[in-house]
Amino acid sequence: MSTVRLWTDADVAADPRVKAVFDDIRTTRASDFVNHFWRGLANHPAILERTWADLKAVMVAPGALDPLTRELIYIAVSTANGCSYCVHSHTAAARARGMTDAQHAELLAVIGMAAQTNALATAMQLPVDRPFDVGA
Amino acid sequence: MSTVRLWTDADVAADPRVKAVFDDIRTTRASDFVNHFWRGLANHPAILERTWADLKAVMVAPGALDPLTRELIYIAVSTANGCSYCVHSHTAAARARGMTDAQHAELLAVIGMAAQTNALATAMQLPVDRPFDVGA
Amino acid sequence: MSTVRLWTDADVAADPRVKAVFDDIRTTRASDFVNHFWRGLANHPAILERTWADLKAVMVAPGALDPLTRELIYIAVSTANGCSYCVHSHTAAARARGMTDAQHAELLAVIGMAAQTNALATAMQLPVDRPFDVGA
Amino acid sequence: MSTVRLWTDADVAADPRVKAVFDDIRTTRASDFVNHFWRGLANHPAILERTWADLKAVMVAPGALDPLTRELIYIAVSTANGCSYCVHSHTAAARARGMTDAQHAELLAVIGMAAQTNALATAMQLPVDRPFDVGA
Amino acid sequence: MSTVRLWTDADVAADPRVKAVFDDIRTTRASDFVNHFWRGLANHPAILERTWADLKAVMVAPGALDPLTRELIYIAVSTANGCSYCVHSHTAAARARGMTDAQHAELLAVIGMAAQTNALATAMQLPVDRPFDVGA
Amino acid sequence: MSTVRLWTDADVAADPRVKAVFDDIRTTRASDFVNHFWRGLANHPAILERTWADLKAVMVAPGALDPLTRELIYIAVSTANGCSYCVHSHTAAARARGMTDAQHAELLAVIGMAAQTNALATAMQLPVDRPFDVGA
Repeated sequence: MSTVRLWTDADVAADPRVKAVFDDIRTTRASDFVNHFWRGLANHPAILERTWADLKAVMVAPGALDPLTRELIYIAVSTANGCSYCVHSHTAAARARGMTDAQHAELLAVIGMAAQTNALATAMQLPVDRPFDVGA
Repeated sequence: MSTVRLWTDADVAADPRVKAVFDDIRTTRASDFVNHFWRGLANHPAILERTWADLKAVMVAPGALDPLTRELIYIAVSTANGCSYCVHSHTAAARARGMTDAQHAELLAVIGMAAQTNALATAMQLPVDRPFDVGA
Repeated sequence: MSTVRLWTDADVAADPRVKAVFDDIRTTRASDFVNHFWRGLANHPAILERTWADLKAVMVAPGALDPLTRELIYIAVSTANGCSYCVHSHTAAARARGMTDAQHAELLAVIGMAAQTNALATAMQLPVDRPFDVGA
Repeated sequence: MSTVRLWTDADVAADPRVKAVFDDIRTTRASDFVNHFWRGLANHPAILERTWADLKAVMVAPGALDPLTRELIYIAVSTANGCSYCVHSHTAAARARGMTDAQHAELLAVIGMAAQTNALATAMQLPVDRPFDVGA
Repeated sequence: MSTVRLWTDADVAADPRVKAVFDDIRTTRASDFVNHFWRGLANHPAILERTWADLKAVMVAPGALDPLTRELIYIAVSTANGCSYCVHSHTAAARARGMTDAQHAELLAVIGMAAQTNALATAMQLPVDRPFDVGA
Repeated sequence: MSTVRLWTDADVAADPRVKAVFDDIRTTRASDFVNHFWRGLANHPAILERTWADLKAVMVAPGALDPLTRELIYIAVSTANGCSYCVHSHTAAARARGMTDAQHAELLAVIGMAAQTNALATAMQLPVDRPFDVGA
């Protein structure tokens, strides 16, 4: 099931622009496996290029947060947005980056807790406390 | 604006069950300030007690993720759920736990990136790749 | 703040099509007060007519669920969708239909619990149990 | 998998009220195929009638937006709401109304971009700029 | 498909802490069937215990709302959050608690109506009416 | 209210990297007004540069969808995501690109209709019809 065609390796090989991105994905990840997300975006080379460039800058390049923490945040957003594909792919990515069972358990606990208090705060329509306001 | 009454310190002082929770919040946080979330939940002592007990277990007790990482995840969920109050309160909490400007910037970048790829994956309705499936 | 003009009673009086809907809202609710939702939709008479007709059929007409239960469900959906205006207006509507503080407390508890377990189930990407499937 | 029974053509033929709606769907769309959405709603004739009448008025009748543009908007909402069934059915509908691959690509790009900036704006909790306020 | 291992009855029997919760679920529900939600949470005994304790307090214990009404609210939240698993499991739970087809139809009508007016109110960015504000 | 500092023109003038982006925004839009979104992102020059570059590519450059259609899609996503700031800013942008009142009315009708049928389809957990599946 998908709303777009998923490109095979043969399709990719026949399109230099798409091939360049796939080559870089494989090199960057040091793995031959390229997941469906990129095989779907391959239909739209401009989006493919832009999305991969952004993802590399945000998720792979060294930064102020370590790569595992970034994956945990990614899972949290994907869960809240109900993106089934993304929860699967980024849980796998987090495991590949060393997420332990205990960390996964705690991630789930925080996500569940946040979802609950989000709902309670929204149902109560609370005014923001003055000390929380940066502009105050 | 709120759909419930927000309890003042005088209201709290007059209700031993609510007072016990507020006392524990103040002791645990080593601060006299108690934010609106708890002042709204005070209308429902049973929810107040349960929510505070759960939050303490999930966000304060030592665990596999450090407290700042848990706050970053909390902000991520609150943003994806569009909870204005929660984004404000947990951004303040993350700052209080040492979040730097660079970490905040990177958190925003990851949240934005995840929201974008969530939307793209959902629009393409991608099947989950076999290697991502724990049960496979 | 709004993205559309909110019609005053004078505006309404000058437009027979809009006036007919406003008259019916006032008669049906036995109240002169007409809230902003309808004053915004007044810009689009066809949507105004259709939305009011549907709302009357769904929320006012006798049915298998009593009117208060329908309002509780409305608040639950509005909270999950993060619609600030709707949480306010339907909490007021539920109170007008007799919602007690204890019922409101329990509503909040259920909404919060559901939000939490929704997040946990989504994060675990659970397969549906066979007994839950009507078509099985 | 579904939480309701999906009506077969034989079921439909046996219920005049449901049959009338199905006949109109087939005539309006000039196609014998009736998708699961209507076969599920058939359990509730009043909702079936109302939903089809509304959908016809909003999506089929001539208006200020051409039918393809309306389908693009429908896909955008369905994606943001994470409705898998709806993304599939309205992507098919858009294709039937002439959506090209290039238009689909651009639709995805806009949906992804909007999702990203939505998340960034929510995380920053920005005040609305005065020039954006119609009521100011 | 799942991101965590689902515990079999043999796994459960080997872990006293998990077994205690499963025993209580079976006793409370007077049924031997334990659904995937708990088999996934079994990986994290602390979350399992806390979630079951909370769910029992919120959904099973006597209160101001009858158990069926609570299930209807649960379905409403689960639908708005797009949690496929939860819609399935709580629709089954509501049926087990006596939900009739007519009540299910009306629940769907209210959920659909609320989703529509939520979207309209959000698109118009309506200011909350003064009479809806508890704090005014 | 905001969780980040909003840069003034003086702040911008003092930072060449940020100034370059603001200059390009002003030139591209042929307007001196720069809205809060960019003044918030200015705290994070790398995100500012990337987001503006992407937005220009997606929303301003010539493409398969006309600029007004792209804005309508943007409003649809922003509404479904409940981003108050974004609904305001993109409704203003759509008006600046010529959106008529009749088009706005129809946009609202489509957004509302989609939200309603999304909810109904999710509540019924419908299987995707075979003809909708591109991969079938």
